[in-house]
Amino acid sequence: MWHCQGVTRPAPVPGAVRQGSLRELNLAVVLGRIAAAPRPPSRADVAASTGLTRATVSAVVDDLIAGRLVAESDPAPRNGAGRPARGLVLAGSGPAGLGLEINVDYLAACVVDLAGEVRHHTVRRADLRPVSPADALARLVALAAEARADAERQGLDLAGVALAVPGLVGDAGLVRLAPNLGWRDVAVPELLAGHPPLAGPVPGVPPLVVDNEANLAAVGELHADPTGPASFLHVSGEVGIGAGIVLDGALFRGVRGWSGEIGHIPVQPQGRPCRCGGRGCLEQYAGQEAVLAAAGLDRADLPADTAAARLADLAAAGHPAALAALAEAGQALGVAVAGVVNLLDLDTVVLGGGYALLTPWLRPAVLAEVSRRVLTAGWAPVTVRPSTLGPEAAVVGAAGSVVRRIVAEPVGWLTRQS
Amino acid sequence: MWHCQGVTRPAPVPGAVRQGSLRELNLAVVLGRIAAAPRPPSRADVAASTGLTRATVSAVVDDLIAGRLVAESDPAPRNGAGRPARGLVLAGSGPAGLGLEINVDYLAACVVDLAGEVRHHTVRRADLRPVSPADALARLVALAAEARADAERQGLDLAGVALAVPGLVGDAGLVRLAPNLGWRDVAVPELLAGHPPLAGPVPGVPPLVVDNEANLAAVGELHADPTGPASFLHVSGEVGIGAGIVLDGALFRGVRGWSGEIGHIPVQPQGRPCRCGGRGCLEQYAGQEAVLAAAGLDRADLPADTAAARLADLAAAGHPAALAALAEAGQALGVAVAGVVNLLDLDTVVLGGGYALLTPWLRPAVLAEVSRRVLTAGWAPVTVRPSTLGPEAAVVGAAGSVVRRIVAEPVGWLTRQS
Repeated sequence: MWHCQGVTRPAPVPGAVRQGSLRELNLAVVLGRIAAAPRPPSRADVAASTGLTRATVSAVVDDLIAGRLVAESDPAPRNGAGRPARGLVLAGSGPAGLGLEINVDYLAACVVDLAGEVRHHTVRRADLRPVSPADALARLVALAAEARADAERQGLDLAGVALAVPGLVGDAGLVRLAPNLGWRDVAVPELLAGHPPLAGPVPGVPPLVVDNEANLAAVGELHADPTGPASFLHVSGEVGIGAGIVLDGALFRGVRGWSGEIGHIPVQPQGRPCRCGGRGCLEQYAGQEAVLAAAGLDRADLPADTAAARLADLAAAGHPAALAALAEAGQALGVAVAGVVNLLDLDTVVLGGGYALLTPWLRPAVLAEVSRRVLTAGWAPVTVRPSTLGPEAAVVGAAGSVVRRIVAEPVGWLTRQS
Repeated sequence: MWHCQGVTRPAPVPGAVRQGSLRELNLAVVLGRIAAAPRPPSRADVAASTGLTRATVSAVVDDLIAGRLVAESDPAPRNGAGRPARGLVLAGSGPAGLGLEINVDYLAACVVDLAGEVRHHTVRRADLRPVSPADALARLVALAAEARADAERQGLDLAGVALAVPGLVGDAGLVRLAPNLGWRDVAVPELLAGHPPLAGPVPGVPPLVVDNEANLAAVGELHADPTGPASFLHVSGEVGIGAGIVLDGALFRGVRGWSGEIGHIPVQPQGRPCRCGGRGCLEQYAGQEAVLAAAGLDRADLPADTAAARLADLAAAGHPAALAALAEAGQALGVAVAGVVNLLDLDTVVLGGGYALLTPWLRPAVLAEVSRRVLTAGWAPVTVRPSTLGPEAAVVGAAGSVVRRIVAEPVGWLTRQS
């Protein structure tokens, strides 16, 4: 059965490993320390940093190794006396997360292991606007089955699936509205019910989470750059433009879970009509199709995933129409970003999705608008930078969200193994 | 000495009452229960709801009564057997907060007692733009001295001061920028250093906090309506337009403390120049001066505090130019609000300041823009309503912030008394 939810509180776990909450807590604490350590820690390091006894740490580590959550690395050379200890790392074989993405003009699948490494990544180009939701999801299932087979060849077990969609997701995986796909009230779990499950079951890990792609991309970026800021605006620029607002290290979802629709901030209130029914939305000036049209490029001639790369190539070569189109898009984006910074006082704007490749040409115009329009710009600088993950952020973020859940609460996975 | 900060962590308190953190905690817990109770609770009620013993509650309540933080109400009639218990209420004499406000065209002072009642409120009209910051603050000190004398006549002791300003406040009470006042880098505490202090000292209560007026108004509104939503956008419409963003019952200040500048969200990016240096800011279309001009009213003939009331009177009488001006302002406000709702997914917009009086004429246009532009508007309604406190929200919110600090940590006040 496909099980969907935006935010999940794991159900109580039956089984042999559950011997009370102290044990669960110790498993999570030790695994969390190993995950967060900048270098592979020894058992003694983990004991010292957690305050647990070395005997407890050793017993817990043995369980984590037996459960394929932790592995021992080769000993690192050490200065000074004594035998170097073996370091503990998150296992590269064991549970993994499957990330899927359905966007306007491509499908993607991605497998991320417990250590956050991308172990499989496929993108399939297709204009999905003329395709029914059921057919689009059937194609995605085929892509997912390939990913699963590849993961299994690598010794990985898919523990759960997260699906990124370019739209607003309600309860139980219902896509309320995805304007650029033409989807309205698409019950993803129902459409997937006839297909075999692709992951799990693992207690505490939902087999399928459906979430907005901009949200998953922002969270992916947060975890891809642990030294980065704890609060930032992540803007995903594709055919649509979405944002994820990260505040103090957590995604801000809004009152009902539908935050981040920056693409529909009005930047020319009486301007071009938008698919959403409004006018002058940012998407109509800085979305991929608007930029391609302004650059004189025919979208039909250009595989969608290559549009940003093609624009970047032309801009790098000094193509005047491409440069003008990107400056115009950057200005519209800057108007919206200036409004967001005036409102939220964020100091970092990360350009993701297709924008990641185009940052050198978008940034000057964005910064000019920020400097001109943000009240605090004179003394409180705003950084605009490309995302670390680029166009893959949503699908990598989706897969990563599955494994982060296991790291946070490993007992479910261990129960499954016992 | 004037002591200024945006957010304060009280210093450790020396003195007789400090007998360890358990006692401090019990004082705060019992006082908090009395403050939050919908009806005056008895000592037994407080014991039942806190889990403390009746003996502990009685000893703590005796201290709170001796310290003029709690009083006993007359016994309420009770059905059934037994003698009715006397109810406990927050004291109406004892510590109070002084709220001050300096705005573009008025000064205000307000005293709020521990129970949240406004015990004094004065507004003095004056165009402060031609007045130096030092002179403006000297006038405010005179107003504050009147408020203090009136408070003392009523048996109230001013425990601290909070000052609302229409600008961006940095560390140590420095007003970085108040564009409509023409202030830049005004060190309020230095300018007040030659004047006698107006409140305190009370351990743990800063004698002076300087904060943005829209922030204080939003927090005032949050506490004025305990049954209202925990997350909302509060828009203060005066000469300038500011917002306070309340998320889950707390003000969201942004990364550096300068959130809420909704007045400078661009609504016509190439439109009218703004005092901030930008173009087409919301203030230029929905600020008080823009609305008066569109309505054909001469600002010079109109005391500033009466501008909103005058517009409301004209609109109620069907004055075509006033109606058209308010519709135009509402549309511009709606464009900005639609952007905010698309971004943050808030479901409640509170119109405060002068807007509170004008809500009947602003709301239709705001809702029309929200309905047209917000992606989720079709299934996720947005409520637009006037504030409870209206134009007094900032100065009442300021005074209330002082007494809420005492309710949260009463030990400082009790130490002072001992």
